[in-house]
Amino acid sequence: MSPDSQKQLVVTTDVLVDGVHFSDVTTPPHSVGWRAIAANLSDLAAMGASPLAVTVGLALDGELSVDWVEQMYQGMSSILAEHNTAIVGGDICRSSVTTVSITALGQVSPKHIIRRSTAQPGELIVVTGDHGMSRGGLELLLNPSLGTNLPQQQRDIFLSAHQYPQPRLDLLRYLWEIMETTVITGMDSSDGLGDAVLQICASSGVGAQIQLSSLSSVSMISQWFSAEQALNWVLYGGEDFELVLCLAEEKAKKLVEIVGKEAKIIGKVVEEKSVILMDGNQQKSLNLAQSFQHFS
Amino acid sequence: MSPDSQKQLVVTTDVLVDGVHFSDVTTPPHSVGWRAIAANLSDLAAMGASPLAVTVGLALDGELSVDWVEQMYQGMSSILAEHNTAIVGGDICRSSVTTVSITALGQVSPKHIIRRSTAQPGELIVVTGDHGMSRGGLELLLNPSLGTNLPQQQRDIFLSAHQYPQPRLDLLRYLWEIMETTVITGMDSSDGLGDAVLQICASSGVGAQIQLSSLSSVSMISQWFSAEQALNWVLYGGEDFELVLCLAEEKAKKLVEIVGKEAKIIGKVVEEKSVILMDGNQQKSLNLAQSFQHFS
Repeated sequence: MSPDSQKQLVVTTDVLVDGVHFSDVTTPPHSVGWRAIAANLSDLAAMGASPLAVTVGLALDGELSVDWVEQMYQGMSSILAEHNTAIVGGDICRSSVTTVSITALGQVSPKHIIRRSTAQPGELIVVTGDHGMSRGGLELLLNPSLGTNLPQQQRDIFLSAHQYPQPRLDLLRYLWEIMETTVITGMDSSDGLGDAVLQICASSGVGAQIQLSSLSSVSMISQWFSAEQALNWVLYGGEDFELVLCLAEEKAKKLVEIVGKEAKIIGKVVEEKSVILMDGNQQKSLNLAQSFQHFS
Repeated sequence: MSPDSQKQLVVTTDVLVDGVHFSDVTTPPHSVGWRAIAANLSDLAAMGASPLAVTVGLALDGELSVDWVEQMYQGMSSILAEHNTAIVGGDICRSSVTTVSITALGQVSPKHIIRRSTAQPGELIVVTGDHGMSRGGLELLLNPSLGTNLPQQQRDIFLSAHQYPQPRLDLLRYLWEIMETTVITGMDSSDGLGDAVLQICASSGVGAQIQLSSLSSVSMISQWFSAEQALNWVLYGGEDFELVLCLAEEKAKKLVEIVGKEAKIIGKVVEEKSVILMDGNQQKSLNLAQSFQHFS
């Protein structure tokens, strides 16, 4: 492996445990492999880095079938092929609990590194896609009695969001172009949209105002689930693997135009160091415990 | 992280599972951390590569104490500090079985890469240290009734070999110097000395003759354990993390001189594709199943 000498090497690791991050009920083996890789590629995208290679460490329950393992590898291979990336190392051993550890290597030009700590008051906050969908898919898989009025096509969108998330490496070339002239701050929303906004604000020493009306998936999800579930999933569901980005107004609007209809401006960076969800006249504060504070 | 642009990036992964690779009985947490890192650094040494950085993926049993985790990190830090290497990424999650996944990144000049596939008949086989010691230490820890006649100092050598193995990164500068003029073929003995010789032979399309009399730890271990145990541990015990190297006669002798008394020439590479253990007039074949074939 020979990284570009002008670029910086970045590395990211994720550990997925059977019964915690996946299960027979929610994740067929092909999806386990896909999601494990997707999580790491999304970490790279969040840093502005393109993937170089991955390593795979497997601790496998001895009762798993060879078929299970093969399908999991196929899931890994499918998503890696989409991003021209190879498995360059690994280790397999036996355990009583199947555990999948992925380390991804990426590279990025120093001027294209996306950090969490550089957001400035006045910048707009852009999400590159819908949130709450992965969590919705998970809930549908865990509770088959849920969402019986869901059209099959819509159900498939939820399930696919959970089982086959797409890391936003496709956006890197646009982000790099914008970064020729402007700073972009951001991270991915793997731990939830609320968490991403809070972490960016904490790292940058700023606050944020999020417009509830701009979170279009809240009203969409509310068609089939309660409004409370919808808001909870959108803000705290996690694993949608979109990017949450802060950048100057003009560039933010340009980015949303390029990415297309799923991308939205959801709010703005402010000086006051709290994260406020604006719902008409009412304000909610988001906190790091991933639950709501009462309306203030 | 900015690797040297003239060097190749290499990467290695190891997964260690509680109850399989370590346990409360055999491995205090400090040693768990040390060994997990040692295994990966040894993989780098076996490729001729110096370490750049590691990532640590932890799936932790929720009943582990914070103290256990801190001590394990201290074990990692101790050995990493000795090799000027930092942890640059990681992930922690909960599991019912503690699993430690380490990925190490290293770099190596193309001309200094040690491969398994380049051994030539006529070359000598060098080991950089004693074998069977780690397995001996493990047995002493598992069976306190064993080796009651062992002097304490000797017992400590066995235990230390198991709990605090030393990856042979210290030898790289000598190996690189020799490789300016000669090919060195090799790997580490993490899966056993016998396995290393067999893998090198299989990759290189050659065979080997090993002199039992040159395996000095066999007679040493036989002082306190049975001769059969001694030979078994030396050939198949594993986790001694020494290097097993094939190189031209003159250079092999020079290497042994540089490394010092623990290093030994243990045999030679031959054209005939079998691995023979020479015991006076008798020959044993080693096989990949890590057990003896009967005397032929």
